[in-house]
Amino acid sequence: MKSRLLIIKIGGNIIDDEKKLSSFLKSFAAVSGKKILVHGGGKVATKIGEQLGIESKYVDGRRITDAVTIDLVTMVYGGLVNKKIVARLQAFNCNAMGVTGADGNLIPATKRPVKEIDYGFVGDVLSSQIAADGWQFLLNNNLIPVVAPLTHDGKGQILNTNADTIAQEISKALSSVYHVTLIYSFEKAGVLMNANDDNSVISKLNPEDYKQLKEEQNIFAGMIPKLDNAFAALKSGVNKVIIGNAEQLNELIAGTSGTTITNE
Amino acid sequence: MKSRLLIIKIGGNIIDDEKKLSSFLKSFAAVSGKKILVHGGGKVATKIGEQLGIESKYVDGRRITDAVTIDLVTMVYGGLVNKKIVARLQAFNCNAMGVTGADGNLIPATKRPVKEIDYGFVGDVLSSQIAADGWQFLLNNNLIPVVAPLTHDGKGQILNTNADTIAQEISKALSSVYHVTLIYSFEKAGVLMNANDDNSVISKLNPEDYKQLKEEQNIFAGMIPKLDNAFAALKSGVNKVIIGNAEQLNELIAGTSGTTITNE
Repeated sequence: MKSRLLIIKIGGNIIDDEKKLSSFLKSFAAVSGKKILVHGGGKVATKIGEQLGIESKYVDGRRITDAVTIDLVTMVYGGLVNKKIVARLQAFNCNAMGVTGADGNLIPATKRPVKEIDYGFVGDVLSSQIAADGWQFLLNNNLIPVVAPLTHDGKGQILNTNADTIAQEISKALSSVYHVTLIYSFEKAGVLMNANDDNSVISKLNPEDYKQLKEEQNIFAGMIPKLDNAFAALKSGVNKVIIGNAEQLNELIAGTSGTTITNE
Repeated sequence: MKSRLLIIKIGGNIIDDEKKLSSFLKSFAAVSGKKILVHGGGKVATKIGEQLGIESKYVDGRRITDAVTIDLVTMVYGGLVNKKIVARLQAFNCNAMGVTGADGNLIPATKRPVKEIDYGFVGDVLSSQIAADGWQFLLNNNLIPVVAPLTHDGKGQILNTNADTIAQEISKALSSVYHVTLIYSFEKAGVLMNANDDNSVISKLNPEDYKQLKEEQNIFAGMIPKLDNAFAALKSGVNKVIIGNAEQLNELIAGTSGTTITNE
């Protein structure tokens, strides 16, 4: 029987909120068994970028990672955010090891090809090249990987990759060797029927319901890539995907809070 | 018989010079056997700090690491510099893993006690608490640790620690399990008899000669902490310490270039 692996993505405003982050990390540290934490960047990169005079550029609502921006996110995601989380987890007796996709070649990627839009230094993960044994080797030695949303092209270039996507790709790659539960945790209670009502959490969501919600435009636009990631993960062998509030980590793991994404 | 381990510190202007750094990393990648790279921060932290309006503070010529400065060096050393080096080494087929002392609790430290001077968030390494097996586990799995000059206090705080000191501390801790050669590489050809003459390299230096050089004030002041570190390492079981030009890495390893520090 495969052993259980929890892959938890922490994102949204939690990263920027000292108190909520600390409380989340305490809960994360206390979870037993094998686990991986994937973090987003929060707003601190934008804030430091502004101080450095780096303008955030968007085309069609999507961020462009130019040469100064990739340096910025490498500093902030790979350095500031990642190492602060690692140091705090160590204080909770959780033997965290901060990594990017470049470290140990854990997440090979390729620079997104330029079509209509040049996204710059954005990495599309080479799913089939993620080696499960690189991750297993850390997990088997009781190290807890803390993953910054950065990948690399194998030719010396760091690339910016969406943290939700990274969580999904690692989950898929490791589902061959572990029974994987993927948790997307953030400041919302889950997938909401009504985006303005935190009490309207949908407890279970399957592909048909999701299709209908999208058709009725009843779903918060920002949730769509997350859900697409979630269903893609399930299709590729991940056992369970749960979306919900980072402040209720234990309940999410137990399945008593948030939205469970299912194929059934 | 103990297997050989090379611990190489790269510092000085090399970090800031794209071409020299790349050439050094290519040579480093090609070195066979177990190895660890420790890097300094270069001038990029000061440059980015100035852009962010962070003033470099010094007391008696020693840098003070206040709250904004520890965030700055965490970003720059742990993120920008470390991950760029890792990505480049990966391109040279060197399976690098970037770490700070917080990752895997590899280098426990304590915040320097405030006496006459409050150095701020500076870490004094807790030598006896460096666990050799944490390092061995990486090395035995053919991962090449790339170490940023940051430690942690085990209570959630990242600390700033001199890279020469880190190289020395790791060397000492691992000399119980490996035959360790420690190389301090930078832009100079070695320990010079005459600081202005690159041809005046002293090929071998023992404690008596060093004492005499200091008394005659024939030694570049910036070299003294490095040499003190070198002799301390030798006293604690490190087999060999070599100081010299990063552009001649193979010659340094072979002992045909630079200064060999010896107890004899």
